[in-house]
Amino acid sequence: MRPSGRSLDQLRDITIETGVSKYAEGSCLIKFGDTHVLCTATVEDKVPGWMRNSGKGWITAEYGMLPRATDSRMQREATRGGQSGRTQEIQRLIGRSIRAVTDLKAMGEMQMRLDCDVIQADGGTRTASITGAYIAAHIAFQGVRRLGMIKEIPFTHAVAAISCGLYKGTPVLDLDYAEDSNAGADANFVLAGNGGLVEVQATAEDVPFERDAFDQMLDLARKGCDELFAKQRAALGL
Amino acid sequence: MRPSGRSLDQLRDITIETGVSKYAEGSCLIKFGDTHVLCTATVEDKVPGWMRNSGKGWITAEYGMLPRATDSRMQREATRGGQSGRTQEIQRLIGRSIRAVTDLKAMGEMQMRLDCDVIQADGGTRTASITGAYIAAHIAFQGVRRLGMIKEIPFTHAVAAISCGLYKGTPVLDLDYAEDSNAGADANFVLAGNGGLVEVQATAEDVPFERDAFDQMLDLARKGCDELFAKQRAALGL
Amino acid sequence: MRPSGRSLDQLRDITIETGVSKYAEGSCLIKFGDTHVLCTATVEDKVPGWMRNSGKGWITAEYGMLPRATDSRMQREATRGGQSGRTQEIQRLIGRSIRAVTDLKAMGEMQMRLDCDVIQADGGTRTASITGAYIAAHIAFQGVRRLGMIKEIPFTHAVAAISCGLYKGTPVLDLDYAEDSNAGADANFVLAGNGGLVEVQATAEDVPFERDAFDQMLDLARKGCDELFAKQRAALGL
Amino acid sequence: MRPSGRSLDQLRDITIETGVSKYAEGSCLIKFGDTHVLCTATVEDKVPGWMRNSGKGWITAEYGMLPRATDSRMQREATRGGQSGRTQEIQRLIGRSIRAVTDLKAMGEMQMRLDCDVIQADGGTRTASITGAYIAAHIAFQGVRRLGMIKEIPFTHAVAAISCGLYKGTPVLDLDYAEDSNAGADANFVLAGNGGLVEVQATAEDVPFERDAFDQMLDLARKGCDELFAKQRAALGL
Amino acid sequence: MRPSGRSLDQLRDITIETGVSKYAEGSCLIKFGDTHVLCTATVEDKVPGWMRNSGKGWITAEYGMLPRATDSRMQREATRGGQSGRTQEIQRLIGRSIRAVTDLKAMGEMQMRLDCDVIQADGGTRTASITGAYIAAHIAFQGVRRLGMIKEIPFTHAVAAISCGLYKGTPVLDLDYAEDSNAGADANFVLAGNGGLVEVQATAEDVPFERDAFDQMLDLARKGCDELFAKQRAALGL
Amino acid sequence: MRPSGRSLDQLRDITIETGVSKYAEGSCLIKFGDTHVLCTATVEDKVPGWMRNSGKGWITAEYGMLPRATDSRMQREATRGGQSGRTQEIQRLIGRSIRAVTDLKAMGEMQMRLDCDVIQADGGTRTASITGAYIAAHIAFQGVRRLGMIKEIPFTHAVAAISCGLYKGTPVLDLDYAEDSNAGADANFVLAGNGGLVEVQATAEDVPFERDAFDQMLDLARKGCDELFAKQRAALGL
Repeated sequence: MRPSGRSLDQLRDITIETGVSKYAEGSCLIKFGDTHVLCTATVEDKVPGWMRNSGKGWITAEYGMLPRATDSRMQREATRGGQSGRTQEIQRLIGRSIRAVTDLKAMGEMQMRLDCDVIQADGGTRTASITGAYIAAHIAFQGVRRLGMIKEIPFTHAVAAISCGLYKGTPVLDLDYAEDSNAGADANFVLAGNGGLVEVQATAEDVPFERDAFDQMLDLARKGCDELFAKQRAALGL
Repeated sequence: MRPSGRSLDQLRDITIETGVSKYAEGSCLIKFGDTHVLCTATVEDKVPGWMRNSGKGWITAEYGMLPRATDSRMQREATRGGQSGRTQEIQRLIGRSIRAVTDLKAMGEMQMRLDCDVIQADGGTRTASITGAYIAAHIAFQGVRRLGMIKEIPFTHAVAAISCGLYKGTPVLDLDYAEDSNAGADANFVLAGNGGLVEVQATAEDVPFERDAFDQMLDLARKGCDELFAKQRAALGL
Repeated sequence: MRPSGRSLDQLRDITIETGVSKYAEGSCLIKFGDTHVLCTATVEDKVPGWMRNSGKGWITAEYGMLPRATDSRMQREATRGGQSGRTQEIQRLIGRSIRAVTDLKAMGEMQMRLDCDVIQADGGTRTASITGAYIAAHIAFQGVRRLGMIKEIPFTHAVAAISCGLYKGTPVLDLDYAEDSNAGADANFVLAGNGGLVEVQATAEDVPFERDAFDQMLDLARKGCDELFAKQRAALGL
Repeated sequence: MRPSGRSLDQLRDITIETGVSKYAEGSCLIKFGDTHVLCTATVEDKVPGWMRNSGKGWITAEYGMLPRATDSRMQREATRGGQSGRTQEIQRLIGRSIRAVTDLKAMGEMQMRLDCDVIQADGGTRTASITGAYIAAHIAFQGVRRLGMIKEIPFTHAVAAISCGLYKGTPVLDLDYAEDSNAGADANFVLAGNGGLVEVQATAEDVPFERDAFDQMLDLARKGCDELFAKQRAALGL
Repeated sequence: MRPSGRSLDQLRDITIETGVSKYAEGSCLIKFGDTHVLCTATVEDKVPGWMRNSGKGWITAEYGMLPRATDSRMQREATRGGQSGRTQEIQRLIGRSIRAVTDLKAMGEMQMRLDCDVIQADGGTRTASITGAYIAAHIAFQGVRRLGMIKEIPFTHAVAAISCGLYKGTPVLDLDYAEDSNAGADANFVLAGNGGLVEVQATAEDVPFERDAFDQMLDLARKGCDELFAKQRAALGL
Repeated sequence: MRPSGRSLDQLRDITIETGVSKYAEGSCLIKFGDTHVLCTATVEDKVPGWMRNSGKGWITAEYGMLPRATDSRMQREATRGGQSGRTQEIQRLIGRSIRAVTDLKAMGEMQMRLDCDVIQADGGTRTASITGAYIAAHIAFQGVRRLGMIKEIPFTHAVAAISCGLYKGTPVLDLDYAEDSNAGADANFVLAGNGGLVEVQATAEDVPFERDAFDQMLDLARKGCDELFAKQRAALGL
């Protein structure tokens, strides 16, 4: 029934390649089907001014897309003169999601910058970004731990994200672009490894949707994230 | 138990004054306690270029805050050189929410611009904005109908919004600023008059939250929005 | 003879409501007929870098207008990417006018920020802003005095402003928008309570005007400001 | 008594060199003592969109200053990312002043752009700019007349500008920078050749000034502008 | 002698992978050692306004770098608010270089946009970009030819680029970052397949260099580009 | 054969007037025929943050053009909102060229800012700027030496620049605008007084050019710069 031929609760092929950057403290190239995101983690030994002497660390994220990551070329944000509202919304979401599973106190006064750059886009770039950013951050924390600056990886849980939608009224998992542009509702779920909810965003397209449909999408997301957690552990060798 | 002394499912005092602008086609001043938002609707007889000859209308929203709407003065966005990511995120949400209950085809080729300007802020400015923008838009549509440009008000349902949160672990309705800054989760629900969901946004603060807590917040939001729908009808004389 | 039906030397209805902001150290909503301006004063305990250790205080002003304050909606300056030249010209005028009647030395090292936001515009927004900003600043200084940080309100005089113009060749006082857009000259006078001149700005429209006409406009302005000084004293309970 | 050693009503040495640009339709280098401004006039055969089919012409002005025109180097506005409020205020003044003595209807649908670039600044740059812009515009109109596009130079009067101030309480004419920075009031007068007033701007420094002082400054300005009108006629060979 | 251990006239390992983008009309990932650039070509059926009805095509290029392409993270240009001078200089160079070997008339009224995005940087990003952009453009032209819009690939010659430098006074070919940052001169040569020069840029570091050294660098560049031309032909299957 | 009637190796009339600015520490007005550039040098006693405590000085340059320096008026960069890529490319070139002949260590911790403002443009503005900037800088260094802050002028060589091109296939020296816009190649050479090369930039127009043509252009540039060095020495009284 789905344009992609997948079953309602089936993820796209997910692959994660780590160590793809020569310079970054942590990195991976994560693919959700034809959506490819390069995630890097940069460690800096100083926090923003407003956090100094708090004894706590900080994590921020930035998001970008290559101009020809999409079917028709998009204008480069650097030539437009700034990031769009959509870009800022996504990068704030990535940052909040990773911070929600981090013990900032255990991290100590250090800053981690996560960059998620979409090399190719086919729907679900924000969910692939969050899922990959966790991996890049984990690898970077491992390096910091090897240097003795922290004792434990300061994550309280893993975190992953997946989209769901109503395709012809039926809840489906992990929409690609063709499915997303025809969906009757569009939802992104960021879930923690312990079963907790980190972020829920659901938006009606054209008409309001039923609570029951929402509950089914959340069930699908739980299933999908459980598969993503397994992929993350495999990539990290845990 | 709440800093505001309200019961868990109690809204702040809500007042709505319509016709507050001499020039706007529709307007209201909506107050959720000490949060005061001036909402105006402007009707323009041409749609954006990309919609021309589609036979459909369009609705957009902009959001702003006076510099001393808050406890400590904020820098004016016009002097910062642009709108913040947060501002853009909110105004996109307002626009999406109103469009989700509008029959854009029935509206015809016309554009409505909704301006939500926060005169005073004490938490919940985006939910007050959506609730008030619906009223300003409705009044503006009434004027357009009087002119014979449309036959019916093109709203398929009413729409209202309210925030919920986990205050000391317990779900509560309609957070003010003091409650919001200590909440363990922060959620905004945009609901339609027919019981449908228009937008759901829930964010964990510090730690992930349980699905059960989420469900209770959604129940609270339904109760709160039902009260807001009644206020809207009274303000509109329906 | 005037479109407004007022006599040549008659002000519009002037009302001043103080204490309209929950947060600002001083505030008022001033109305010159259908021109409504919200003025707030913010006290900060540090001066700009270039004034540090001067022992003197500083006062600045900012000016803004809600997008639908006018008959046809204006673009928001925050979305335009900055303040227009007109906005900057007005806010520099407000700041200079208030500083001209302030003993900055007596004020001590503290900064006052005055925000004048036009809620509705019908001509004369800059004169209403100056007249109201003085009141907001006075109230804020009263609070500072109560805290013992200053001994006296550091104003040397009151200050108020009013516009004049040549309507069909005849000098008239306090132009509304309909009168202003047809005036043959446009003048703004900022006067001090002791009869002194703080700022004079007169501009010919289409053709130069006579010195005699200028002198009559200045006489009208003096009369108008004397009424405004009385309104200010009443609002401040002096 | 004046730092410059000049008498109270004495202008600085004024020189005007015309035809200084190889390309501009009209140009002059005007010097008020050490203040040197290069003025050029550019004629364009189309008016701004909002004036099309009005049958009238339009005149605009832009103002700039070389970074080392002043004692300490100023940041280039092109690297700051835009023009300052002061720059915009001055160029609006120049444009208004020239338009006030122009019969825009007689000009026909054509646009004139006046550029006033300060090569060296020692006070009075805006008054030198207006006085020189009139000359550049006149020369450009002569060229347009030679081409038969207009029958008469469309100026109704000459226009010139001069500053006055209160130096140690005494009104003086044409302040240089050293005098200006110590003046108790600062006024700029733009006067028409027929004795009319085009623009009056007077600002108190520190304390309000008396009406009588204002009247004396206006008398001085009249005397100074009469000398400038003679210089303009000589430069134009009229 | 070289930090890289290469002989004086030895290129780094060069690899070129074509067809790396699902959407772009032409694409390749080119690697000069650890410098990796993703080049895409986008074909648009309309030229810029100033070229319309000229019967000629146009080619432009844009250049970007991922924030963690370098050893220490660089600020994203989209958050800085615009492209740096260096970025603009490079993308103008890429565009000029490709246009210099293109018969714009034979291309017809069509525009090609070349995007060169540096995924990882280790010196020589602009020379890798030019060498790869030619390949992406060639592939895109092949597609246009298959559609019958052009008869021949409109390239008059191949084009490739390579850097040279004076390392400890000795001319060397294809500098990596470690060599570049210690070079006594830095040169970039863009050469055509027929032996012609397209662009020469040589810059002294610290002290001027001899003409003789320049000549030797140009000889090296010729040798290096001949190797690059062979790599290009292999990648294109010519 | 040349439009200008000059012989192939003939410079335009070169004049250099020093001391043209009342305020700048060094200045000159340099003319290459109808190309006129005002060059000023500003000395500041502190270096940029990243150079502090390095014991070395720094030299930067900025470049600008008056809007009517050219045949048709160009938009002011300050109103465009920033410097163009071309402007930045030129000012980086000027700065590099002067630094390449400066002993930054001997200069001590001080910064020199060179401003090159084109009053009138007829081709070759960047080469006139470099040639003039050296003179302004030299004069400024003389003043610093008189103050005892440096012992010697820290220039290791003189530096000058000239353009060459292929006009109808023949190498010619010092192109004016009419020649430049028809040239088959465009080259700028920055040469040091000792015969060394500081910067070489050669660009093909339409088709690649031969190495032999390049060599001839470099010979011409050497001859031209030798004449410029003599002019510089005369202007500096050396």
